[in-house]
Amino acid sequence: MPQRVRIALDAMGGDVGASVVIPGAAISLFRHPDTEFLLFGDRACIEEQLAKHPSMKPASRIIHTDIAVRMEDKPSQALRRGRKTSSMWLAIDAVKKGEADVAVSAGNTGALMAMARFHLHTLPGIDRPAIAAVWPTIRGDSVVLDLGATIGGDAHHLVALAVMGSAMARVLFNLERPTVGLLNIGVEEIKGHEEIREAAELLRAMNLRELDYVGFVEGDGIGKGAADVIVTEGFSGNIALKAAEGTARQINTFLRDALSRTWLSRLGYLLARQAFRGLRDKLDPKKSNGGVLLGLRGVVVKSHGGTDAEGFAYAVDVGYEMVHYDLLTKINQMLNRDGGR
Amino acid sequence: MPQRVRIALDAMGGDVGASVVIPGAAISLFRHPDTEFLLFGDRACIEEQLAKHPSMKPASRIIHTDIAVRMEDKPSQALRRGRKTSSMWLAIDAVKKGEADVAVSAGNTGALMAMARFHLHTLPGIDRPAIAAVWPTIRGDSVVLDLGATIGGDAHHLVALAVMGSAMARVLFNLERPTVGLLNIGVEEIKGHEEIREAAELLRAMNLRELDYVGFVEGDGIGKGAADVIVTEGFSGNIALKAAEGTARQINTFLRDALSRTWLSRLGYLLARQAFRGLRDKLDPKKSNGGVLLGLRGVVVKSHGGTDAEGFAYAVDVGYEMVHYDLLTKINQMLNRDGGR
Repeated sequence: MPQRVRIALDAMGGDVGASVVIPGAAISLFRHPDTEFLLFGDRACIEEQLAKHPSMKPASRIIHTDIAVRMEDKPSQALRRGRKTSSMWLAIDAVKKGEADVAVSAGNTGALMAMARFHLHTLPGIDRPAIAAVWPTIRGDSVVLDLGATIGGDAHHLVALAVMGSAMARVLFNLERPTVGLLNIGVEEIKGHEEIREAAELLRAMNLRELDYVGFVEGDGIGKGAADVIVTEGFSGNIALKAAEGTARQINTFLRDALSRTWLSRLGYLLARQAFRGLRDKLDPKKSNGGVLLGLRGVVVKSHGGTDAEGFAYAVDVGYEMVHYDLLTKINQMLNRDGGR
Repeated sequence: MPQRVRIALDAMGGDVGASVVIPGAAISLFRHPDTEFLLFGDRACIEEQLAKHPSMKPASRIIHTDIAVRMEDKPSQALRRGRKTSSMWLAIDAVKKGEADVAVSAGNTGALMAMARFHLHTLPGIDRPAIAAVWPTIRGDSVVLDLGATIGGDAHHLVALAVMGSAMARVLFNLERPTVGLLNIGVEEIKGHEEIREAAELLRAMNLRELDYVGFVEGDGIGKGAADVIVTEGFSGNIALKAAEGTARQINTFLRDALSRTWLSRLGYLLARQAFRGLRDKLDPKKSNGGVLLGLRGVVVKSHGGTDAEGFAYAVDVGYEMVHYDLLTKINQMLNRDGGR
């Protein structure tokens, strides 16, 4: 475990850049005072924000660049325009050089993935990276991956996802042997792609010490907390995540409409307001902000581009925890023992 | 439009069989008195239920069989054991012979799909069938397909889904030219499988009279009502549907817990109770019960196996509407004009 956690921030990433990144980092610093920040981006913008958040000053160092990857840049464009110069690249580069323990960016996902992969390379035994995130369930939290980094992939890719996801669950939830399920559809005999069934056989046969494979999980099993780690390839993972987010937002809209319709329901809402706050808190998508790029020789965390300071702070927290509990070493250990087959 | 709508019911289908199917049919009959039922299954069980629901008697005819497909049967088993004899097969057979306009079963999906496909065959121009259902959104309802009938499939399969889904949306929502979106993930340059991009190009190039292709829709776009018809292959469609259902159930649990925690929140709940009823009604999964098997030479509706009488009634309603508004003819017309390429 490092003495202090050194976090490289892409201060220009996201829909608004420094005015969310710096205040967000300040919130996270309050929760984890043993953090140091490297701030990559436009010095004037950053200093303006640091003036408003003086707690950040002693914990930060600014590395100026006026080049930023745009949200609409394609990965190839971003690499062409921003390689070696952009705030996103420089944050990743700090991880590569060992000057930072983790990079956090709210910049565009495709560009971040491309740069991280290009510059950090994948771990031995890992062909393709993944994005993992924490999904709140009825039973607690689960790790779900891949949320869109890699589309498709064979049985060995799914096994690698299971290993990496388990390492993350061990680190985050402090579990000895997290349960792992493979996302699948429930209909008999047409129950999913060949590679999912093959991955199931592999996981059963390997009987890994660090994870407990529990079988197939259907889409509604994620919210039930059917397993600590839910594994799927990036297309279906992204669809599942966004369908769930969309449903949560939809219900929220319906609920607000229903409760504001009559004076009686408005009064009821006022009385139960504390309960609703608790609920909102529980379902707050900001709290699940922070997708971890897994499978790389370095830790990179992706924040939603459209989040606010509070949401960005959660992404910084995720980065902090990954370093503090030494995720990368644990993944490597598991891969060397089990996953590199 | 037929004089009366003749519905063949698999009276033994579902987790409990006749004690849900007959009461459910009675509810639907009350809403659509111009319905006739053919009831396939164990005569004693059915008559016991008819005695409790006398309105059903004059509208029903019983065709006895004591063979029923079990919920755990694999499709191949079901075909072997239940072909020509089971209540499920006989209901489909009634559609094949023109004795019924639609078959409704709460029996197991794989078996129903296999029997329907084996016995009814697919429409000209359609290789593989689909399951479509109505998805409640913020903007109204959308048709989403395929929810798990066919995994994978090329661009032409996706175009056929678009055509069939549009026909269903035209029938159900009374739209001239429904909007159609292809479900995809949002990351640039890795934005989805090749076949989805190819389907997008095809749909744009075809510029069909009966549907308005509006582009890619992400998972959270379904709940927003981003298009009247959302098209995806069966694996991701099933995952999206179940992830959304799971999230709705999860929020419901959280909400109930939150509102029962303090006396103040309980009082608030009592006052706003009407609003919550309205909400529950709006989100009631029973109301979305009834997946339509599309692409076959006959209409078959699949009900959830675990639903109650009220839920089964919605599936019967869906069958009624598909016949009443002549879905099959409309799909055929569209396929002949556009989709059979």
